[in-house]
Amino acid sequence: MRHAVILAGGSGTRLWPASRRAKPKQLLPLGPGGEALLSAAVRRGRAVAGARVMIVTADEQVTATRAVEPDVEILAEPVARNTAAAIGLAAATLLRRDPDAVMVILPADQHVRDEAELARILDQGLAAVEHDDAIGTVGITPTRAETGFGYLEVEPGAVGLVDVKRFVEKPDRETAQRYFESGTYLWNAGMFFASARRILAELETHLAPTARAVTAIAAGGDAAALYAPLLKISIDHAVMERASRVVTIPASIGWDDVGSWAAIADVRGTDASGNTVDEHALVLDGTGNIVLSDDGTVIATVGVSNLVVVKSGDAILVIAKDSAQDVRKVVDALAAKGLAKYL
Amino acid sequence: MRHAVILAGGSGTRLWPASRRAKPKQLLPLGPGGEALLSAAVRRGRAVAGARVMIVTADEQVTATRAVEPDVEILAEPVARNTAAAIGLAAATLLRRDPDAVMVILPADQHVRDEAELARILDQGLAAVEHDDAIGTVGITPTRAETGFGYLEVEPGAVGLVDVKRFVEKPDRETAQRYFESGTYLWNAGMFFASARRILAELETHLAPTARAVTAIAAGGDAAALYAPLLKISIDHAVMERASRVVTIPASIGWDDVGSWAAIADVRGTDASGNTVDEHALVLDGTGNIVLSDDGTVIATVGVSNLVVVKSGDAILVIAKDSAQDVRKVVDALAAKGLAKYL
Repeated sequence: MRHAVILAGGSGTRLWPASRRAKPKQLLPLGPGGEALLSAAVRRGRAVAGARVMIVTADEQVTATRAVEPDVEILAEPVARNTAAAIGLAAATLLRRDPDAVMVILPADQHVRDEAELARILDQGLAAVEHDDAIGTVGITPTRAETGFGYLEVEPGAVGLVDVKRFVEKPDRETAQRYFESGTYLWNAGMFFASARRILAELETHLAPTARAVTAIAAGGDAAALYAPLLKISIDHAVMERASRVVTIPASIGWDDVGSWAAIADVRGTDASGNTVDEHALVLDGTGNIVLSDDGTVIATVGVSNLVVVKSGDAILVIAKDSAQDVRKVVDALAAKGLAKYL
Repeated sequence: MRHAVILAGGSGTRLWPASRRAKPKQLLPLGPGGEALLSAAVRRGRAVAGARVMIVTADEQVTATRAVEPDVEILAEPVARNTAAAIGLAAATLLRRDPDAVMVILPADQHVRDEAELARILDQGLAAVEHDDAIGTVGITPTRAETGFGYLEVEPGAVGLVDVKRFVEKPDRETAQRYFESGTYLWNAGMFFASARRILAELETHLAPTARAVTAIAAGGDAAALYAPLLKISIDHAVMERASRVVTIPASIGWDDVGSWAAIADVRGTDASGNTVDEHALVLDGTGNIVLSDDGTVIATVGVSNLVVVKSGDAILVIAKDSAQDVRKVVDALAAKGLAKYL
């Protein structure tokens, strides 16, 4: 049967001050109408797997996650150990229930504008891995020369289910521009499809201790003791880059990683002045701003553009939109100053 | 005897959100070490008048003013009626106590770096008006081509007490540049010196209803009824521009009108990175910023420069420093939206 696994393990400091250690970004009401990113991911899982949706998250985030999605099964990792271990744990758990389990794996912190098209693509991918033991990843057709994502190389003119020639790491700006113009590179979106059996077999080949541990945990073993020693490695590095028969489906679905405040404009949309604001914002003589306040505090901006201004709890961030990735510097500086209470 | 009159009637929306209708800017702890601008003005008055300092303020601001300066006499205007009426009321009040009263009149919302030099200049001015019935104003030697102030024209090479040839209104940019280069124009700082008798005589000539009303109030008349009908006009327009024997003393005293957030950098100074910050600010990769928070809310900025970011109470302002005068637009927009609670 078809299952959807939502990976909700991130800490998301890049959306500080809204995201904090105790409140990761997938739980924040950042979507249209205040929807949590996690809830949007669950909806996309249900579109292809019905009620068989499972959220994998770290033990310390279970309570907060359940508050947002009370009706979805939660599989708790004792500690966060990156995606190879998390996906392995989900695969081993599903395999014990359903030897024919096929899975789509969806990150919890992404934005997809065309969910119907994504459902069509995931259906196609699941159908493929039900009768063929391929392992697949959704390949996003690039819309810009992005340096923040890994890429998949495919043959020219790829349509539908095609082989991945190779995975490539995040490129520099020049290489990203070449990839963007080539038409033969897709973004690696972190959305996978495969049978649970194939995933465990690949882990057994490339990351045997993880395969053994997750299988033992699924069989009732001591999760805390078995899981903690596992390598922190992504499924991409551990498996996808080294596996055979890796396929992808080029997808134009209005996808974006909600990896920084700059991406929130796509998620929430902009007003007639080109600003992304909530009801507490007053933006005068400016465009391209993202201005959000989590309470009744009014934020007035005058004569500034392409700026992110976010008030959340006891902190305010002001950052140029095109350097929104640098919010990490703030997090690091606060930690260095002993101001961890703001993290 | 010598008296100092501090004019503390302004509402100061240009320092929103710190200044509010109920908390005008002269009462804010904006100076070094959190000193109120009003307290600095009182100190400058005491330097030339000893204990004979009087604050003139609107009735509704008396309580807040007394909280900041409990030991200074406060003369309450029933309603704000601009500086001609306020100075007239002070002059009439002092004249009943002291027929030989001479006054320095000091606005409450200014910054003076060299207070000793100002005291020397005010002493010189007071000495002049004690034996000669001139009316005088301190003329600030311009340090930039400022368009926000009125100017005084004097003869070339003016030093010490000199005649004012004429008063001129706020110039456009080109004219301001010409004034700045000429060496014969001084800023009109709103600091005056004259005998109380001369001030009332000038008001009698140019603004007789005001002269009669303030004299009646000083004699015990019904202040509320007498004061409310008075014209709202500045002492500059009502008297100084039309009086004879107007003198000035060119002054290089590090003076500035604290008329906008941009001026706060001069008042408070800057750190090694060129930013004006308080202990709640974390400014990364930027210079020329003014970042102030009135409570424990941390404000982090990354990669922005020459920006004003101020959190005060239930409001946050983000504005380019060189358009800091436009904060009035925010105040107007909030009022237009029915959000007067933020004013």
